Amino acid sequence: MSALFETLLVARDAPLAHGHVSSHARGVWLVTLNRPDCRNAMSLQMVQELRAVLADAEASGDARVIVLRGAGGHFCSGGDIKDMAAARMRPLDANAANRDPLAAVNAAFGELCVAYAGTGLALVVIAEGTVMGGGFGLACVADVVLASPTAQFRLPETSLGVVPAQVASFLVERLGYSEARRLAVTGARLGAHAALTLRLVHEVHGPAELEIALARTLDEILQCAPGALAATKRLIAKARFERPASLVAEAAAVFSNALQSPEGQEGTRAFIQKRKPSWAPK
Amino acid sequence: MSALFETLLVARDAPLAHGHVSSHARGVWLVTLNRPDCRNAMSLQMVQELRAVLADAEASGDARVIVLRGAGGHFCSGGDIKDMAAARMRPLDANAANRDPLAAVNAAFGELCVAYAGTGLALVVIAEGTVMGGGFGLACVADVVLASPTAQFRLPETSLGVVPAQVASFLVERLGYSEARRLAVTGARLGAHAALTLRLVHEVHGPAELEIALARTLDEILQCAPGALAATKRLIAKARFERPASLVAEAAAVFSNALQSPEGQEGTRAFIQKRKPSWAPK
Amino acid sequence: MSALFETLLVARDAPLAHGHVSSHARGVWLVTLNRPDCRNAMSLQMVQELRAVLADAEASGDARVIVLRGAGGHFCSGGDIKDMAAARMRPLDANAANRDPLAAVNAAFGELCVAYAGTGLALVVIAEGTVMGGGFGLACVADVVLASPTAQFRLPETSLGVVPAQVASFLVERLGYSEARRLAVTGARLGAHAALTLRLVHEVHGPAELEIALARTLDEILQCAPGALAATKRLIAKARFERPASLVAEAAAVFSNALQSPEGQEGTRAFIQKRKPSWAPK
Repeated sequence: MSALFETLLVARDAPLAHGHVSSHARGVWLVTLNRPDCRNAMSLQMVQELRAVLADAEASGDARVIVLRGAGGHFCSGGDIKDMAAARMRPLDANAANRDPLAAVNAAFGELCVAYAGTGLALVVIAEGTVMGGGFGLACVADVVLASPTAQFRLPETSLGVVPAQVASFLVERLGYSEARRLAVTGARLGAHAALTLRLVHEVHGPAELEIALARTLDEILQCAPGALAATKRLIAKARFERPASLVAEAAAVFSNALQSPEGQEGTRAFIQKRKPSWAPK
Repeated sequence: MSALFETLLVARDAPLAHGHVSSHARGVWLVTLNRPDCRNAMSLQMVQELRAVLADAEASGDARVIVLRGAGGHFCSGGDIKDMAAARMRPLDANAANRDPLAAVNAAFGELCVAYAGTGLALVVIAEGTVMGGGFGLACVADVVLASPTAQFRLPETSLGVVPAQVASFLVERLGYSEARRLAVTGARLGAHAALTLRLVHEVHGPAELEIALARTLDEILQCAPGALAATKRLIAKARFERPASLVAEAAAVFSNALQSPEGQEGTRAFIQKRKPSWAPK
Repeated sequence: MSALFETLLVARDAPLAHGHVSSHARGVWLVTLNRPDCRNAMSLQMVQELRAVLADAEASGDARVIVLRGAGGHFCSGGDIKDMAAARMRPLDANAANRDPLAAVNAAFGELCVAYAGTGLALVVIAEGTVMGGGFGLACVADVVLASPTAQFRLPETSLGVVPAQVASFLVERLGYSEARRLAVTGARLGAHAALTLRLVHEVHGPAELEIALARTLDEILQCAPGALAATKRLIAKARFERPASLVAEAAAVFSNALQSPEGQEGTRAFIQKRKPSWAPK
């Protein structure tokens, strides 16, 4: 599998570090950004491979969680400047909608964030070292972010005369409007503990504890039925922009369908029989 | 009054615990979920009675605050499974819109949350012991939640193969989109202090202090003119989904009407005369 | 400049306190609410002058940050009651839309908040002493609020029988829906540290440290290219109400335009040449 990608290491059902192998690993895809020489700068190729791996996972039928981390002690230093320079040189294609090659490169990253933000799979990010620009954006779309004390978050765009444009939506999603604006106006330099205060990250741990926290988080996620988890994420995404009264009927249908689905029937049976349901790690 | 309800205890203008009787109690309806044998599981009957008591309070003309708590040291363990089972057996009615009896039971709970979230009365929840599923949802719609250290919040739905469907909207209202999603994906087990960090609850106190905190909270609420409080809640609800610029004219009309209303005139007079206004506890 | 205003002191490119003069001051407009005898109550004249100074700053071409503070140890005690009384006496004009003079005075304050909330300039508020009613609203629209331990936030409206009507939108912007509602229902008395917990303010410092924190905050802001900062604020404001997927194309165009603008070119050159860009303080 990993052989297909140049910028990523992908391990399906990967054994987790520190001996937390066991059934935890079932359904967990560990995706490592693997350009450590440039702190995993997000080239256009990496953007395309990240989209491909998500599509593979969603199509696999048995992926339940994607864990995203970076090789070499850094998560991601943001967009790769070389791609920007190359984009200026040549148009990507002759299609009218993509006439601006710089905008096209940037939009590809935006579509990546939209895809990860909208997936029904659970998404965990391990934030270590540099978490900058587009890397900051990816941290914002994760369901859970576990951080190392080494994590340094940064939005350098405005100090370079440009704009954290695709990140803006996901800053607001993660932090709320007001905090997103404050960070953008002040250049957003945050250590791990400041990020915890803002709930940009959810836990901060040193190296050994970080792997244990990851195993615990995966165990919590894997207790949840995959179909129910995806349906819940969809409803919560709707609730961000729609009034509660307008969602009652749809929510009721989702509930009823879930209860009558194989998952709902197995969950109910397991509860009555005082055993774990089939989807939970043993 | 209480005699009318099977699943609730309702005390109008109830004397508060620990000697905080006095005028505090005027306008305060204390509603106790009263099925302690099943940790106040929310049966369809309880849903209907909770809607009825809110309608009574809104129609009473003198109710100002509803305090919701549970009997027996627990707030509420969520939907009653027996009702779900019964709903599968028989359709609620022949009406086409309700053809799915499971959806109908679930929607009734959703409508309950919508009604409590939208009331112009103040709503205080005392969270103790189990606060699960639908009980978690009710805690999300309250204006103020005071918690005991015993409070344990939980969304067990996805681990049972179902969806916290009606709760989703109110998780987002209370916690914001990102935290709501994180909780849903990880199964949401929270103690009182973790809930305080997320502002799911606003204060945590041991037994004696909890009653004192309630009396203080009620005193703060009762300083506010009831009509002005209801108008403010309505404007804030609008502001959640509408741009500030689009609300300026409506807000100005609300302000002007309030200032010229009997409340506004009494408030202004009381301020000039350096006395408490008529609606404030003596 | 200041001579033009009766209720404000305005210092363009003002030397900052405690010797932080230097280039920090370039582009910083220090606007002091200057009615210390009434804790800087916001008269209709002050509202008009605040709008005028913002329009001047936006038109100046070199203003980058507005710092708003109050004279005499208080920020602002809210709307001036005398103006309300005068408004009752005489209609502002014969225009049908303004037939209600109380509503017109209130709407003028609302338009002020909308203008400051929507500016592409950075806005910093120094919160000291009384921060009440409309003053609370102004604190909510600032990008960054630095507070003194003396700061006391309050929404007294409902206890006077009226409504924090124009403030409602900005409470929700700053604090989120749920916390805004809780504050409104309980009368919102907050000290500086409670305000920090809610992220109504971002730092709390004693007198000497407050000026140092201001200099540091201004330095962070001034590292950002002014055009890029304004474009980022605009995108973040859009992201509050629009789905991420719907903003990808616009964000990409904003990014591409910024990169090809004089700012983007200077920023890229400065980065390559390992020097500060032209807009950054030396």
